[in-house]
Amino acid sequence: MPTKAFQTKLAKYADLIVTVGLNLERGQRLIIYNAATRGVGVHTLPLVSEIARAAYQAGSPLVDVIWNDESLIRTRLEHIRHADVQEYPTWHTKGLLDTIEGGGALLSIHSSDPDLLADLDPELAGLWNQRHVRDYEPVLVGATVNRMNWCVVAAAGPRWAKKVYPRLSSEKAEAKLWRTLFRITRADLPDPVAAWTDHIRELTRRARYLTDRRFTTLRYTGPGTDLTIGLPDGHRWLAAREQTASGHEFTANLPTEEVFTLPHRLRTEGRVQATLPLVHAGQRIEGLNLSFQGGHVVRAEARKGEAVLRKLISLDEGASFLGEVALVPQDSPVARQKTLFFDSLLDENAACHVAIGRGYRTCLPGSERVTDAEFLERGGNISSTHVDFMIGSSQLDIDGIERGGAVQPVMRAGEWAFDI
Amino acid sequence: MPTKAFQTKLAKYADLIVTVGLNLERGQRLIIYNAATRGVGVHTLPLVSEIARAAYQAGSPLVDVIWNDESLIRTRLEHIRHADVQEYPTWHTKGLLDTIEGGGALLSIHSSDPDLLADLDPELAGLWNQRHVRDYEPVLVGATVNRMNWCVVAAAGPRWAKKVYPRLSSEKAEAKLWRTLFRITRADLPDPVAAWTDHIRELTRRARYLTDRRFTTLRYTGPGTDLTIGLPDGHRWLAAREQTASGHEFTANLPTEEVFTLPHRLRTEGRVQATLPLVHAGQRIEGLNLSFQGGHVVRAEARKGEAVLRKLISLDEGASFLGEVALVPQDSPVARQKTLFFDSLLDENAACHVAIGRGYRTCLPGSERVTDAEFLERGGNISSTHVDFMIGSSQLDIDGIERGGAVQPVMRAGEWAFDI
Repeated sequence: MPTKAFQTKLAKYADLIVTVGLNLERGQRLIIYNAATRGVGVHTLPLVSEIARAAYQAGSPLVDVIWNDESLIRTRLEHIRHADVQEYPTWHTKGLLDTIEGGGALLSIHSSDPDLLADLDPELAGLWNQRHVRDYEPVLVGATVNRMNWCVVAAAGPRWAKKVYPRLSSEKAEAKLWRTLFRITRADLPDPVAAWTDHIRELTRRARYLTDRRFTTLRYTGPGTDLTIGLPDGHRWLAAREQTASGHEFTANLPTEEVFTLPHRLRTEGRVQATLPLVHAGQRIEGLNLSFQGGHVVRAEARKGEAVLRKLISLDEGASFLGEVALVPQDSPVARQKTLFFDSLLDENAACHVAIGRGYRTCLPGSERVTDAEFLERGGNISSTHVDFMIGSSQLDIDGIERGGAVQPVMRAGEWAFDI
Repeated sequence: MPTKAFQTKLAKYADLIVTVGLNLERGQRLIIYNAATRGVGVHTLPLVSEIARAAYQAGSPLVDVIWNDESLIRTRLEHIRHADVQEYPTWHTKGLLDTIEGGGALLSIHSSDPDLLADLDPELAGLWNQRHVRDYEPVLVGATVNRMNWCVVAAAGPRWAKKVYPRLSSEKAEAKLWRTLFRITRADLPDPVAAWTDHIRELTRRARYLTDRRFTTLRYTGPGTDLTIGLPDGHRWLAAREQTASGHEFTANLPTEEVFTLPHRLRTEGRVQATLPLVHAGQRIEGLNLSFQGGHVVRAEARKGEAVLRKLISLDEGASFLGEVALVPQDSPVARQKTLFFDSLLDENAACHVAIGRGYRTCLPGSERVTDAEFLERGGNISSTHVDFMIGSSQLDIDGIERGGAVQPVMRAGEWAFDI
């Protein structure tokens, strides 16, 4: 039985998700799912109930939920043959697409066991994920052009929490993960909305400064990392607050500490070492090293999960090019937890990162409605996947190189190196 | 934490559902839902997990679940305006229809709080149910002609159990309801499958006897009941075991104690008094009395829930004519519990009953593929609903009247009155 104090915090968190996160409009449908496994686990019902309450109070006519408990995903993959992976419940995607087409909003809740499929046949898990990604692509496309307001948040769950805090019992770990989530999303402050207004203002200023510099290239230096990433002409840096095509503002991630833009897909050179493990499709990739030539991954190594990594970057052509570059200082509330969450929503807000796969067209004004070919031509990347991996640390320096060749410090020892 | 003994019984129950109930074929998809509220509550996960395990072991490539926790249905109906009821997640139905079209099987799990919506605006609850029924009709049509193998079962839940056993705590009530479910479905016997083979044989013999009599009319006599129900030419009585169009056998209800057929929609005369309350769309109807002329309900009264009753029988034209007549002896395992379950799957197996709404074409051989007009012409009934209500008791007598006028006893004091 949850305590009343917990229930109050959960309600504040739900209110924050519906107001600051989605900024749900009166009359808007909301559909709740999990982008990684499609459906949310049934253990998230207490949060989902509070979100539904908040959404109905905001005037939503229908809050719809795609559930898909991870225990059932596991049971399936323990039993079926490889060919059976192609049997796919496409009606789930129809729920998402119907909501997008009807002007509704999407909320993805992360709450999965990071090692859900770790001990299963990686070939089967990879096929399962490929089938899933193929079906899900139209939804991802909708999100990367902000066709609708959307948001990604996290909910504690017993199995996930036990991985994050292995020395605690499942119950204590889950309670602690909830406390951490409330802290890093500022939901435990007396006035979370006011705190977010200040936070969004600061991130927006940093994004504006970076956009105004019009860097042609970023240069990363750190242990195992010597990398340059070209940025396309006309790119802009975004942070925290985004807009739908119709001008409706929302915050796509809670928490969010990053300032990000689109790299030029053909202009990444050198090598980079991940500073945190990456969890992909329920499987863990550790000790990741990538080398790039002409934007393309030419060498991919991992101490653990290398097969998963190889499958991931060979999913389609765009999966071996970068689609996002993001800056996060080491003093972010998430980074200050000094905790590995095994979930990119949280871990990507603890460290600078890049993503392979699909790029956000909103980072290249004017590209939202061009053809795929034109987007590629301008330096954008197209793929059916988008996977972040963390490369930031307190030993990472980043410089920006201006058109004339001038070098400006962007980050030093993992912290912002410019004033706003 | 469930005990190991409970988990073992749950697994046997799940095996029974997949083998005797659905008789799931290798390669068949399975989709699990709840016909009344569309989705199953998340508290049913332990049973759903065991069913998934059993189905995968039987060679299913995909077990899909439509969840829709009743707490979320309530939250919605507490907040939305009447017009918002029309916002409907049609993609859920698509999941069911895709499964039917792809040759899959359907499993409906009953586990709802009987008073879920009892204290809400009955007008709103009625509109919600109408919208739901309209969307669901193609699935109901598929079931009434046995396009696929399908089955309806029950799972205990804390709120439902507390209604059934109000003097116990929720936890003890739920444990007791599970024990009862295992008993009345014979899942607690050493060899449940053998027990079902015997049981099915007896019911099938009774059905054959009744079919062979070719009664033109049934006459019901009991307290508050004086009713004749005409039966259409060529009707047959069914029980327990049904067949899909392609000849695949299955058992549509667990438990099932009934022998049933199709009444002639225009030939019900007199009055009938329900002997148990009826729960419809989360609302309770008590003290139900109906009068019929020419098959049509000409008077409908209820001590409680009369508004719900009126909405129900005015849903469409067929909703005020009978679509099913079913015989259940008072010594059935369900009846012996002397318990009101507030759920038709169980209560209908404790007493003789009739249903208003859609009739089963399988009870009129040759009518499975005729037009609706021809089915009506032969005496069948068409409607977007099908709702059972219980009229049996230990004071009910039923006679069958043969073509020549001879009267044969069918039931006396609620028990079978013929040998097989």
